[in-house]
This record gives sequence, C-alpha cells and structure tokens, in this order.
Amino acid sequence: MLAELKGLNEECGLFGIWGHPDAAQVTYYGLHSLQHRGQEGTGMVLANEQKLTSVKGEGLVTEVLTAEKMQTLSGNAAIGHVRYTTAGGGGLENVQPLLFNFQSESMAMAHNGNIVNADQLKSQLESQGSIFHSTSDTEVLAHLIRKGGSAELKGRIKDGLNSLKGAYAYLIMTDSELFVAMDPNGLRPLSLGLLGDAYVVASETCALDIVGAEFIRDIEPGELLIINDKGIVSERFAACKQRSMCTMEYVYFSRPDSNIDGINVHTARKNLGKQLAVEKYIDADVVTGVPDSGNSAAIGYAEASGIPYEMGLLKNRYVGRTFIQPSQSLREQGVKMKLSPVRGVVDGKRVVMVDDSIVRGTTSKRIVQMLKDAGAKEVHVLISSPPIKNPCFYGIDTSDKDELIAAKKSVEEIRELIGADSLTFLSVEGTVEAIGRPFEGENRGQCLACFNGKYPTEIYSDQEIDYIKC
Amino acid sequence: MLAELKGLNEECGLFGIWGHPDAAQVTYYGLHSLQHRGQEGTGMVLANEQKLTSVKGEGLVTEVLTAEKMQTLSGNAAIGHVRYTTAGGGGLENVQPLLFNFQSESMAMAHNGNIVNADQLKSQLESQGSIFHSTSDTEVLAHLIRKGGSAELKGRIKDGLNSLKGAYAYLIMTDSELFVAMDPNGLRPLSLGLLGDAYVVASETCALDIVGAEFIRDIEPGELLIINDKGIVSERFAACKQRSMCTMEYVYFSRPDSNIDGINVHTARKNLGKQLAVEKYIDADVVTGVPDSGNSAAIGYAEASGIPYEMGLLKNRYVGRTFIQPSQSLREQGVKMKLSPVRGVVDGKRVVMVDDSIVRGTTSKRIVQMLKDAGAKEVHVLISSPPIKNPCFYGIDTSDKDELIAAKKSVEEIRELIGADSLTFLSVEGTVEAIGRPFEGENRGQCLACFNGKYPTEIYSDQEIDYIKC
Amino acid sequence: MLAELKGLNEECGLFGIWGHPDAAQVTYYGLHSLQHRGQEGTGMVLANEQKLTSVKGEGLVTEVLTAEKMQTLSGNAAIGHVRYTTAGGGGLENVQPLLFNFQSESMAMAHNGNIVNADQLKSQLESQGSIFHSTSDTEVLAHLIRKGGSAELKGRIKDGLNSLKGAYAYLIMTDSELFVAMDPNGLRPLSLGLLGDAYVVASETCALDIVGAEFIRDIEPGELLIINDKGIVSERFAACKQRSMCTMEYVYFSRPDSNIDGINVHTARKNLGKQLAVEKYIDADVVTGVPDSGNSAAIGYAEASGIPYEMGLLKNRYVGRTFIQPSQSLREQGVKMKLSPVRGVVDGKRVVMVDDSIVRGTTSKRIVQMLKDAGAKEVHVLISSPPIKNPCFYGIDTSDKDELIAAKKSVEEIRELIGADSLTFLSVEGTVEAIGRPFEGENRGQCLACFNGKYPTEIYSDQEIDYIKC
Amino acid sequence: MLAELKGLNEECGLFGIWGHPDAAQVTYYGLHSLQHRGQEGTGMVLANEQKLTSVKGEGLVTEVLTAEKMQTLSGNAAIGHVRYTTAGGGGLENVQPLLFNFQSESMAMAHNGNIVNADQLKSQLESQGSIFHSTSDTEVLAHLIRKGGSAELKGRIKDGLNSLKGAYAYLIMTDSELFVAMDPNGLRPLSLGLLGDAYVVASETCALDIVGAEFIRDIEPGELLIINDKGIVSERFAACKQRSMCTMEYVYFSRPDSNIDGINVHTARKNLGKQLAVEKYIDADVVTGVPDSGNSAAIGYAEASGIPYEMGLLKNRYVGRTFIQPSQSLREQGVKMKLSPVRGVVDGKRVVMVDDSIVRGTTSKRIVQMLKDAGAKEVHVLISSPPIKNPCFYGIDTSDKDELIAAKKSVEEIRELIGADSLTFLSVEGTVEAIGRPFEGENRGQCLACFNGKYPTEIYSDQEIDYIKC
Repeated sequence: MLAELKGLNEECGLFGIWGHPDAAQVTYYGLHSLQHRGQEGTGMVLANEQKLTSVKGEGLVTEVLTAEKMQTLSGNAAIGHVRYTTAGGGGLENVQPLLFNFQSESMAMAHNGNIVNADQLKSQLESQGSIFHSTSDTEVLAHLIRKGGSAELKGRIKDGLNSLKGAYAYLIMTDSELFVAMDPNGLRPLSLGLLGDAYVVASETCALDIVGAEFIRDIEPGELLIINDKGIVSERFAACKQRSMCTMEYVYFSRPDSNIDGINVHTARKNLGKQLAVEKYIDADVVTGVPDSGNSAAIGYAEASGIPYEMGLLKNRYVGRTFIQPSQSLREQGVKMKLSPVRGVVDGKRVVMVDDSIVRGTTSKRIVQMLKDAGAKEVHVLISSPPIKNPCFYGIDTSDKDELIAAKKSVEEIRELIGADSLTFLSVEGTVEAIGRPFEGENRGQCLACFNGKYPTEIYSDQEIDYIKC
Repeated sequence: MLAELKGLNEECGLFGIWGHPDAAQVTYYGLHSLQHRGQEGTGMVLANEQKLTSVKGEGLVTEVLTAEKMQTLSGNAAIGHVRYTTAGGGGLENVQPLLFNFQSESMAMAHNGNIVNADQLKSQLESQGSIFHSTSDTEVLAHLIRKGGSAELKGRIKDGLNSLKGAYAYLIMTDSELFVAMDPNGLRPLSLGLLGDAYVVASETCALDIVGAEFIRDIEPGELLIINDKGIVSERFAACKQRSMCTMEYVYFSRPDSNIDGINVHTARKNLGKQLAVEKYIDADVVTGVPDSGNSAAIGYAEASGIPYEMGLLKNRYVGRTFIQPSQSLREQGVKMKLSPVRGVVDGKRVVMVDDSIVRGTTSKRIVQMLKDAGAKEVHVLISSPPIKNPCFYGIDTSDKDELIAAKKSVEEIRELIGADSLTFLSVEGTVEAIGRPFEGENRGQCLACFNGKYPTEIYSDQEIDYIKC
Repeated sequence: MLAELKGLNEECGLFGIWGHPDAAQVTYYGLHSLQHRGQEGTGMVLANEQKLTSVKGEGLVTEVLTAEKMQTLSGNAAIGHVRYTTAGGGGLENVQPLLFNFQSESMAMAHNGNIVNADQLKSQLESQGSIFHSTSDTEVLAHLIRKGGSAELKGRIKDGLNSLKGAYAYLIMTDSELFVAMDPNGLRPLSLGLLGDAYVVASETCALDIVGAEFIRDIEPGELLIINDKGIVSERFAACKQRSMCTMEYVYFSRPDSNIDGINVHTARKNLGKQLAVEKYIDADVVTGVPDSGNSAAIGYAEASGIPYEMGLLKNRYVGRTFIQPSQSLREQGVKMKLSPVRGVVDGKRVVMVDDSIVRGTTSKRIVQMLKDAGAKEVHVLISSPPIKNPCFYGIDTSDKDELIAAKKSVEEIRELIGADSLTFLSVEGTVEAIGRPFEGENRGQCLACFNGKYPTEIYSDQEIDYIKC
Repeated sequence: MLAELKGLNEECGLFGIWGHPDAAQVTYYGLHSLQHRGQEGTGMVLANEQKLTSVKGEGLVTEVLTAEKMQTLSGNAAIGHVRYTTAGGGGLENVQPLLFNFQSESMAMAHNGNIVNADQLKSQLESQGSIFHSTSDTEVLAHLIRKGGSAELKGRIKDGLNSLKGAYAYLIMTDSELFVAMDPNGLRPLSLGLLGDAYVVASETCALDIVGAEFIRDIEPGELLIINDKGIVSERFAACKQRSMCTMEYVYFSRPDSNIDGINVHTARKNLGKQLAVEKYIDADVVTGVPDSGNSAAIGYAEASGIPYEMGLLKNRYVGRTFIQPSQSLREQGVKMKLSPVRGVVDGKRVVMVDDSIVRGTTSKRIVQMLKDAGAKEVHVLISSPPIKNPCFYGIDTSDKDELIAAKKSVEEIRELIGADSLTFLSVEGTVEAIGRPFEGENRGQCLACFNGKYPTEIYSDQEIDYIKC
C-alpha cells in the first residue's frame, strides 16, 4: 500500500478563493476536505483591505485553525495549504502558504509538487546573496520573482515559472490578484470552480463540491490564470503542453469523490478492480479490500468476478497521532494496530485481498499473516496497479530504487516474501485502459514513469533516465 | 441513523484482565478497540501488589491514557471503561471505573447498561445517610454492597445485584479478585477470553481479537464469574435467565468484526440487507450505504438484488471534537459537513440508499437532499431494521416517545418528510430471521421492545408497559 | 525557612460571598489574593437560582479558573478554596469545595485546617456503610451532617462540628444559606467583611482589601455565622472558647498586608526583627532577609540595630512548576536555583541574614554557603521565631519529631551544621511580646505548641502530649 | 514606572557559551536569569558536531524549553535569547536566535538593541532582491554578511557591523566559532566570563553568577571577540569608541544582583535613593518603594533620611499571562490588580513613595490613589531618575514625544495630574553622581539622551536631534 511511503511523500493540498465575503470559512472547509493530502501542516493567508495576514501551524486543519483563531480572520480572498510531510525538516518554517512582506509589495505562495532543479537554482541564488528561510522548494520561486527587477509582477512570475523544472501547481496571492499556475506537464491536479460570484481553485474537485462550488474546468498544463476583482484571464507561460497526470492520483492519492479530467476516482478504482478480474480470475470465497484505498477496487473485482464482497479487514478510526504503538512483545502476543481482520468473515475462507500498490512489501506481509491467523485458508493478493520499479521525482520522493521491492525482486519473489498464495499486479496497459482518460496517445496523458521509467521531464540527478522531450 | 441519538445514549465499553504482566497495556488496546461504544470518558483501574490505582479523564483512550501516564502504570490485573455520554452531568465524577478505598477493603467498579430502579434505590440509601458522589447508576451497587454489613464480599455482591432491575454488565475488582456479572436478561454483550494464562473479559469479541486473546464463551444471563489467582469459578446470582440481547447491538452499536452469541455483526448486517432485498426489490442503478454503519447492509442488498454497490456517500475521517460546524448561511450556500455525496457516482442515477435506522428523521432528510443535489434522479431509502416506536430503558435513553418519529408518523408520512422516492423498513420477523440467533422462541433471545413494545423487565416509570415476566 | 515543609503542609485559603451579582468574579480575585496559602488546587461553587454548580481543578487560580470557564459562571453567592497540598493523595477528588447533591438538599463545603480525630470518625462511619470519596478530612463533616437524620440543617451542622476535634474554619453553602464556622480554639484566621450589601468571608483580610470590602471583624472561636438573604445571625455551637491563633500565621503563612486580630502581619514581622536586635546585637556590615518571608524581619533588625538593610539575596520570580531543577553535576559547578546572592552587596562584608524559621536546616545551610561563596566574610543567621521542637497537628503535618532539627540538636549543633558564624533564635517570650496580640494571658491567645509543646486540644495519637483543657 | 512601556520596549537578553559539555543546560539557566529582560519569546541554537540546531517559541524560558525538549538537545556550544516584545508583529519569525542554513555555511544570530538605520538598509537590500523573513532589525546583518561575497566570514561580519548605526550587542555562531560584537557606543551591557574551560557571554553578570561562571570583563565598545576551540581573540571593528551605557539599565532594566562596568545595580539604585534624600528631604512617617524596581531606591532614601522603610505596597506574585483583569465595574468597586497597598502600614501616615521613573503618569496616579484610599494622610512621590523628555531610539521605542508626559508638562502639572502631595525627580547631575561610573567626562560614559536630548549617534529620522559625533 502506498501509505507505506508516509514520511517520504510530498503530496499536498491547495485551496484558493477570490471575491467571497466568507473567504476564511470557505477555505477552512475546502482545506478540510483535502486533509487526506497532508496532515502535517496547515496554513491560510487572507487578503483583507490591501493587507495579507497569515495563520499557520503544524497539525491538522482542525488543530491549527481553531474556532478561536478563525474568529480573528476576515477578508474576501484567501489561499490555503495542507502539507503532507516535514521532510526537509524545519517544521513551521516549511508550513505553507509562505508570506512575504516587502516594502513595495506583499505576496503569499502555496505549492503542490516537487521542483527537480531546486538545488541548482538555490545554489545560484545563494551565491548572489539570497537567504532561504525554508527548506521547501516553494521559496525558490519567490526569490526568482524578486530578482526579476522592476518589471510588472505577472511578467516576473512567468519568467520565474519558466526557470522551474518538475511538477508544480502554484497559488500566488497579492492584495489585488490571485495567480494560479500549472506546470507544462500538468503532473498534479488543480481545478477551477465558481461559488456565487467568487472563483475557487482546489487540488481536487471534492473541495469544490464540499463548499458548494460549481466545477468549471481543470487548469491546463502551462497555464497561468490571473483572477482579480475584474474577473478572470487565462494566459500561457510555456509553449510546451504535454499532459502527464500522475497515475497514482487515481490509484491512491485522491479522494473517491473527486474527478480528475472528468474521471471519477472511485469509478476509476472500481474499474481497475474489474480489469484485475479480467486479467486474473481467482477461485475464491470472498473478496475484501485493504481499507480505505483498496475498497473501491475490491468492489469492482467482486462485481466482475461474482465472488461476494465482504468486510474482511477493518480499519480502526481512532488511531491518531497520540496512539501508543504496541511493544514488540505485545505484538508477538497478537496485539493488533490500525487494521484488524474480521474473523467471522475470513475464517475457513479462500480470500481475495485487493490493495492499491506494493512499495516495500512489509505491510502486505503483515496483512496476509493477519488474515491467515484469523483462519483464512488461502490469501490471494491482487494489486490494482503495476509494480513500482522506478523512483518518482515529482512529489513521491523514493530517493533511490532500494526502497522499491519491485525494482529488485520478481513477482514470484515478492509473493513468497509476503506469504501470499498468489500475487497479481495489474498490467500497465490494463491500468491505462481501466482509468480510461479522455486523451489521445499510448499513455492517454498520464505519467507512468514509476512503472515504465519514461519520465516526462529531465530530472537533474546523476541517474540516467529515459526522458520524453516536449 | 441511530447516531442521531448522540448525547442521549448510554452505551459503554468494558474491558477486564486478570493475571497478565502487561495488564495496563493490554487494557489500553482492548479499550481502544471498544472506542466506538464511548468517546466521552476513559478510565482504568490497576491492581498492583494489593493496591488499586486509578487513572481517568474525559476524552478518548488516546487522550486520557497518554504515553506519559501509561509509563506510570503497572500491575497484573485491570479493569477499564469507555463512556458514551455525559448525560446525568457531572463530568469527571461519572467517568468509570469508580474506585472506592475503605479502611477495610478497596473496590473498583465499571458498568455498561442502565438500572431502571436506580432512583428508587438512591432515595432509600440517602435517607439512611449515604452520600452519592457521581450521578451515574453505577454507584448504587457500591452502596448496596457496603450496607451489606460484615458478610463475605461475594455474598454482598450477589445481594446487591439482586436489588437491581434493568440492563447491566458489571466488572468489580478488588486487590485479590475480579467479579464479572450479567443481568438476568443478558441485555448487553460481554465475552470471556484467554490470553496466555490470563482471563480477559470484554464488551465485544473484537477486543479479544485485537489483544490476541482466544474467545471462550459469552457471559450467561444471571451469571457471576469470580476470577482470581487460583482460576475461575462460575456461579449464578439469579434464578431467572431470560435471554434478551439488544437487537441494536447487531444493527448499529457493535463493531462489524465482533461476534455476539456466535453471530458475526458484519454478516448479520449483510443478511439484514439481503433480507431487505427479499422484502422489497427496487428497480435502481446503484446501491449505496450511509457510512459507516449502513455499508454492510448495502453490500448485502447489492449482492441479493444484483444492483451494483457503489460508494455514493463518503464520510470525512477528520471530523473530530474541534471541527467547526458551518454557519447556517454557509450551509445554505452548500457547505457540507461529515458526509458528502460522490457526484461522479450518483449523478443521473436511481439510487438505493441503505441506512441502519431512523430516529428523528432529520439526518435522513439531509442525506436524501444531498444525493438529489448531486444529481440523483431517484433516492429510495431502505432501513435495515423496523421502525423504532417505543423508548428504550436499558441504555438508549429516549426518555419519551416524542423523540421517535416512527411513534408519531406513518411510513408514508416519514417518506414525505425525508423527501425520498420510497421508504422501506425491514419487518420485525425479517429482522429476527436475518440475524438468525441460535436460540429458541419467537424472538430468538433478542430484545425487540423498541420495535414491538414488549419489554423484558419492569421499567419503574409512570408509563404503562407490556412487560414479559421471567 | 518554613517553606521547606512544602508537601507536608495543610494550609489552605477560603473565600465566600453572599448576595453579590458578580459573586464568581469577586471570588476569583479573593482566591487569587490567597494563592500564597495553596497552589495545588483551586475550586469554586456558585449558588445560582436554587442550583449549586462547581468548577475545580489542580493548579493555580489562573490555571483552573480560565477566562473561558469564568464566562460560564453566574450566581449571587459563592464559596471558593485554594489548596496547598495533594497530601492524602487523590488529586482532583480532594480539591475543594466538595459539592454534594442529594435528592432532598444540596450542600457545598470548604475547609481550612486539620481534624485530629478524622480517622476515628471515618472508621465509625464506614462501619455504618458510609462511602468516602475523598481522602480529605473535610468530607467527614458531610457524613456526620447527613447521618443527623431529619433535623433542621443548622442543628445537624452544630452537632457535626461538635464531633470534630482540631483546627477548622468551615464554609458550608446551600442554595439558601451560607454557614461559617470556626473551631473552639480559633486556630486559623477567618474574617468577615462587607462589600456593598454582600457579606464576604476570607481566610485573610488581604482578600477583603483586594475586593474592596470593608473589614467588619474576625470570626470568634466556637462561632457559627448563618448568612442568607435576610441578613446575618451569629450563634455559638461550642461553649468552650479558648483563643489559640497559630503563631506561624504571623511568622510565615499570612500575607504581609493582612491583619490578624487587628495586628498587621508585616508590622508583626518587623517587630519580631526589632526584638531580635534587642535580644542579640551583631557587629556586622549589612542586614539581608531571606526573601520573601524574611524581609520584613530583616528591615526591623536593620532599623533597630542601625546596620544598613540591603538586598543581599534575590529570589527568581520565574521559577514555576515547569522549571527544570539543575542536575547534581551542574549544581556542583555552581548553578543556582531559586535564590541567588547579590555579590556586589555581600562581597567582603559581615552579613546578618534574617529568616523566619528553621525546620530541617538544609535550606539554611545552602543559603549560608551561597553567601560565603559570593564573598561574605561572616554570615550570622538570625531567626525571627523560636526553635520548632514539637510536631503540629493542626495543619502543619510534621508527622514526627524526626523531621525537626531543633527537636534533636542544640542551637550550637545546628549552627555548626548550617555553617553559620553565629545562630540566634528569638525567645518564646520575645515572640509573644513582639507580635503584641491584644489578649490577656501568658500566650496572649496564641498557639505556641510547636515551640513549647503545650497543645490547645487532645491530639488523638499514641504520643503523650501536654494538653490544655478548655 | 518604566514598566508602563511594556509593548513598546525592545529590551532583550543574550547568553552564549563555547566549549562546555552541558551547553544547553547552562544556557537554560543563563537565559532564565535574564528572563526579566524579555518574556515574549525564548530561543536557543546549539552547535553539535558541525551542525546547528534550533529550538524556539513564544513564551517564557520554562514554557518554551520544556523538560521534554531539553532532553533532545546536546552540543558543546550555544547561543540563546529572550525577547521582550512582539512589536513589529510576526510572532515566531521574530523570536531569536535566527538560524540560517546555507549550502556553504550555517550561522545563528542573536541581538539586543535597535538598529536606527535598519529601514534604509532593508530598502537597499530588497531592491537588490533580498527577501526578509522577519521584521526584526537583526536579520539585516545576515543579509549584509551574505552580500559580502567570497571574503572570509570575519571580514564580512566586520563590514556588516560597520554598516549598522545604533545600539547592538550581537552573538553570531557558526559550527566552529562564536563571534561577540558590541556597538561603538557600548549602549547595551554585555559581559564575558569563564566557566571551567568554557567562555560565557551574557547581557548581565547575574547570568554569569547564576551558572557559576567567573566574571572576566565587560565587552568594549566597537570590539569583536572571536571564540573557538583554540581560545579567544579580541579585535576591533570600529575606530570610534564612545562609551554611552544606557542609564535606564541601572535605573530599571537590569537585575539588582548584576554589575555594569563594575557598579552593582542594587547599590546604584540605593545610591540614587540616597541622592534623592540629599536633593529633597520630606517630613514623613514611612518610606515605601513601588515594587519591585523602586524598592532599592526606597531603602536608600530611608537610610539617608532616617525615616523608617516599610512595605507599604505589595506586588502579587501570581499575576501571569492568564490573569483575568477585573472589569471596569469591579475596579470601581475597589477590586485591585497587581499591586495592593498595605493598609496596616500606611493608614494615617505621611508616606514617601519611591519609584524608578514616570513615563505616562497613569500608573503613578493609580498608586497614589490606592495609598490614599488605604488611609495615607499624605503621599509624596520621589522618582529616582530625571524626567524623560526625549524619545529613545536604541531599544526603548517611544516613537514620539506624545507618549512622554514630561515632554509636555511641568513637574507641577504632573504632580497635580497624579494627585500627589509633592513630586520630585532626581537631577541629571545627581543621577550621574549617584551611579558613580568609573569613567571620565561630564556624563561618565553614560547615555542621558532621554533626559537631556544629547544622542550619541545619528538617528536617521525626520526629527532634528542633538547628536554627539565620535
């Protein structure tokens, strides 16, 4: 399961709104619905009468944006951010949006993605005297913009964006405008909506739904939107436009009620499960998903195979930050943690267990064992995505291949390691087919680099890679 | 949905262990797995070298039993409690277990259920000079035991229990023994297990599973277990033994991975859903459950009807105590709260929405509206239990009939009120049949009072009721 | 210094008010001014329209009675309590006022002092079935009152008080009356004042001053005041009336701005210092007090002796609950804690150091060493009270004589132990004379038991004592 | 009293240590003893094996540096800071030390003082693309150092310091060195000490005493110390050397047990009080100080005048951040706050009340009234410093003269306003004389600008000032 990558992951959630009297409140609910994209940090910057004010902290939306704090916030425009990881260290400094107050202008900035040439840009800027206060990539753009001299802000933003390589969705807010940018490969989701007269942008459409906004369209690769009190203008900052939406957004990251490029995530997952049934039929008694992300594919597999779908694994809803992990000795005595098997469902049964992915294999091994301890006669593991053989440089920072079991072992070796009676991954073609994105081309505008090693950009590392030029 | 009763509900969770070196840790995980039965208060009493020590507080297990506190706890026996409600007021005083230190003996006490003659007993005791420190029913038994004079403790406990009427599972711990008692009607679940050499008792079998204990059997109505370092002895304190397990434990309260009287709760719920399909087939496109408690029945309905099961409603996992409810004005603009519809799944579809119960009807109305706003062409509501027409006096304190919409309105009137295209409740017979408890008799050892008004005990109220004598 | 007894001490502070629209707020400021009498627990019970409500917690007034909590409190009568110690264990249960809700009446109770026959009374009550929930002596009176049958409350209170032996100031509040009682020996201070039309009672007059109330008089030994909406009535519950105010209230406990029996505490302390100068003149360069309690006596000594008064020792104001004590190794390297010497003042000087008392001698030893390390040529220790040779049973629980250095060693031996160049205690006669209470008799209505072993009551212990019959 | 300026004040405390195995712990105690210089923020940076790590937060030393956090800190060098104010806004960003991690070097920086040309330097740096993250002046030096190109760090630091105008004591730490700098006017105190083999620097000598370090000497104006594992080197970065120690350090800021340029602060204050008696004898009954800062001068006045020194005003020790201020209505009923008069001491007396200074006059007025309400027949106010008629630009940011009552009103007008029977300020000459600094010249190396308007530097403002060239 991709959740194994916790701590390495750079996934984040963005929300922005321009022109709404309750901008702070709406942003609160928008960010809250994006909480699954980041639980480590929460921040919001409000524009209120030519002034930008910021509130941020480490923790969940409800922990940082308390009722007490919310009462102090007002304004009719806001951008917000939920952060997945403290990787890069530094805690609070790295919580976004970053707010910059200059004597000539003020600017807030929130970012989802990963800049692959950030280190190169930083070195260059530091040698010119720039001082970085966060260790996040995000700040690089601010320095590029400020070095842009006396040109108009929009021009400096475009120049800055063109220096960046990698994946990025950016929200940049001043006291008079909201800029929205998407990298030329469109690696991360970002959608535009309308709430009354106010424009809303969010990393996922679920945030538009939750605040009652009407979906307009997804942001285009290489597009820069400029939203202000006069309305909205779309410009392009990059000629290149090579759609490469991260496949894992469908498989694992996004919420089931979000749509990406018109495809509902739950439906995509269910179809991945159905495709699994096409590629591999197992003679079994029950199908169960690994909650929560494996459930939709399991439902699809059950429907297509005719094997009953059951709740064979249960996730404990009360395992939070302060939960005390059982000691090794208690774990050996059988004390469970987050997941527990439903003995009444799996005992004596041949079980199909559907999960979204395998990264290191350790979690899969534990779940298979758990099901067998609960009486399962057979456990067949079906994965609703292909083996992850290559590191991602666009946000899922698997720094080298050693983290990835599928980069080093064959499917049969992995099966043996996790103790399953059989193990099946979905084919790359099946994955593309099942998701069914409405674009042309072999990969249908989807990034498959972690499966097939074909990256949509240079990666600025020592490693030699297969790189698709625009 | 029964969750509407939050605040009125007296459901609680019990866990006890005797003879384990890590008694505190095991109880922590046991209570944690029973957290769904009570989120308002958590407590634990440990027996350590002839001394009982207590830790308790308002809040979740992980909030009260912090890593810091857990480090201070040791002992080889413990009882613990999670509390649903602060009804009766008084906060911390009412958090259990209650601990009593006398010059001659010490005693800790935890209780799940509701004593229907508590007020009568309290009046009597107070007139004799007793001072009550909590407003919970639980304390009544302590005073009865202490008034029992110089007799042996076991005898005083039996006498005390025989004065109580109503529903109760009791754990009573001294420095040398653990007493476990179940009311003569067996209204609340309580199971016995073995973890190594240690005896374990818990309100649900999921707690036995989670700590790795082997299930032995459920506690019998009217039984008193005495557990100490020599072993376990079973005695009876009441001649009467009239099984009347609360039906709502299957329908709503218990965790899907628990078994009650040998019946798995998820399976029972799925069977209730299948039975719904037998009693009422709807010509629809998708089946969806109201998460979490409606999901199992929805899966059953889908399987039996052949209509695809989908995730049409999503529950936000991050809505905790500190979540700020949207203002009326924002709600009118469409801001959602805990539940959100999956537009991509229900848009343009005829939807079967399966829920566990209807109490006041307000929540159902909101969900139906939400699905229609998300594009559902039709919404058919199916409830996997019969209409609740009578108050419960055994823990679900619907003080009078006015709270219960089904006591006042016909099914058609309720349908109109909640705005559904059709509304179907399960029949009482279908409910009994689908759960399929392994006992004789019309009700198969199940309390159906809230559906049919036939109470298993006197209720000590002004109201005249139908009362089944033992 | 008496502060060495921290943790053993049973000193507390009481505040009550009847008939004021801001009863909660006034009690807050009253308790706050009594904070020096107890820092471990804070509680308040309010009477509001026939209902008593309680708020309490472990910690300081400002920690327990937060702005948030204070907003929820209203009523026109209140009693409050600050608690010195958690001795007796049990934390929150022992924080006062205790609130008892019976079906027939409600009653809140706060107490300052120590009941010497509490264990005997508890045993007797428990054997009759009473259950005690706190381990504080205070609760005994509640049980005695409730066992009093159907008599009028006032009569039951008088009977209860007459069963108690020892030191006590009691506030007892119902929804219609406030009872104020003082033990027949008047061992603890308690004063009555008037704030507008409202009657106010407080352990010290500083609390009357701080809330702007006018002082009326001190409560008499053996007196019971009954305050209600009709006014105030004074009755006696005990024939005996033997004034025995604790001398340590003047020497150490009370605030310098309080008056006890008309004598200002700062002035009493200054006079004790002047008397010291009469009894022992030291040829020295500077006089310094051990802050805070030794300062007033030092000022008196300086004035009478003509030696300059200087700030030779400084107390760090920021040492609170969370201050990390230096490790042994750092202390050996010279790291200071609460007190630090003022090198610029004592270097090369012959120093007179004035403190209130010596209990164990360990603190005095440390301070003398500190002054010498800072360059003092000589350190002469003068104590503004006589040697404490006998345990106190009325609140300062020095359980046996082994705690008391003066019970075991001569003055010369103590001097040697603390490393002083000379050591002088005030004489018993000088102490009585300097305080100058306006009563007849050898001890002028003052308890001197800890100095001379003459106790004003029986003490209910194995120890044989000198006991002054009333 | 100068405490009236709370919120405007830029006073801070610095502590640094190089070469001690318990650097974190020692810094904790050092900062703790400097807490009176800043209660708003606390920070520490540790050098541990070529790595700098930072911990900081808003609040007191004991609030920010909890036992839990302290356990995580190790290293053999550290710098720490306590911050007075959040003026300039921005909360946590402005808490020092600031830590900068560059690819080529790391650097931590702590500062006490005020840079008068900070705005000019910031504008210049921003126009070159610099981004400031704090609003504190401190960061300016970091940018100046980084713009210094590839020169050796020491040279860049010297160049940077020479660009600054105003008051500053700076600690700058890298992984291999600790730099200590004092502005050419020596406006703020900073002392050097030795603890074992480790060098220690601190804003006041009390911090050296408290950690057991031996005082070596004060840092010289225009001096740069370089401390590393090889030892200590003193260099100069500025030719100019014009001693101008802030007089208010003696009068109000510093702790009584600190020495500045060899003069003990308590002794200086006592001498200011004695000088007051020389300049103005009052025929009165008692002398009392306004605690805490007025006490030493009051003792001096009493000693020189022969009038008894008494504790006529008491400061409540438990008034912290969470204390609820009494409502206007309660204040009118007489509820007191931080200070209370000792009625037993002042009733019927002619009182001399000694305070350190008058800024706005509002506090003095309240205290005089309080003493009169407590029965004082006459209240004579004596101030142990001259009238403050001019704004300070070096840390006490009285932005314009309108804040300063003595800039607008005569002594007689102020007396009338505060309701005193007489009001006397100390003369400028008497102030210089009484403190008695061991330097030549009319002002004996002391800044008297707030009294006489003669500033030791340019002030970079629109205002025309009298400016003493070096």
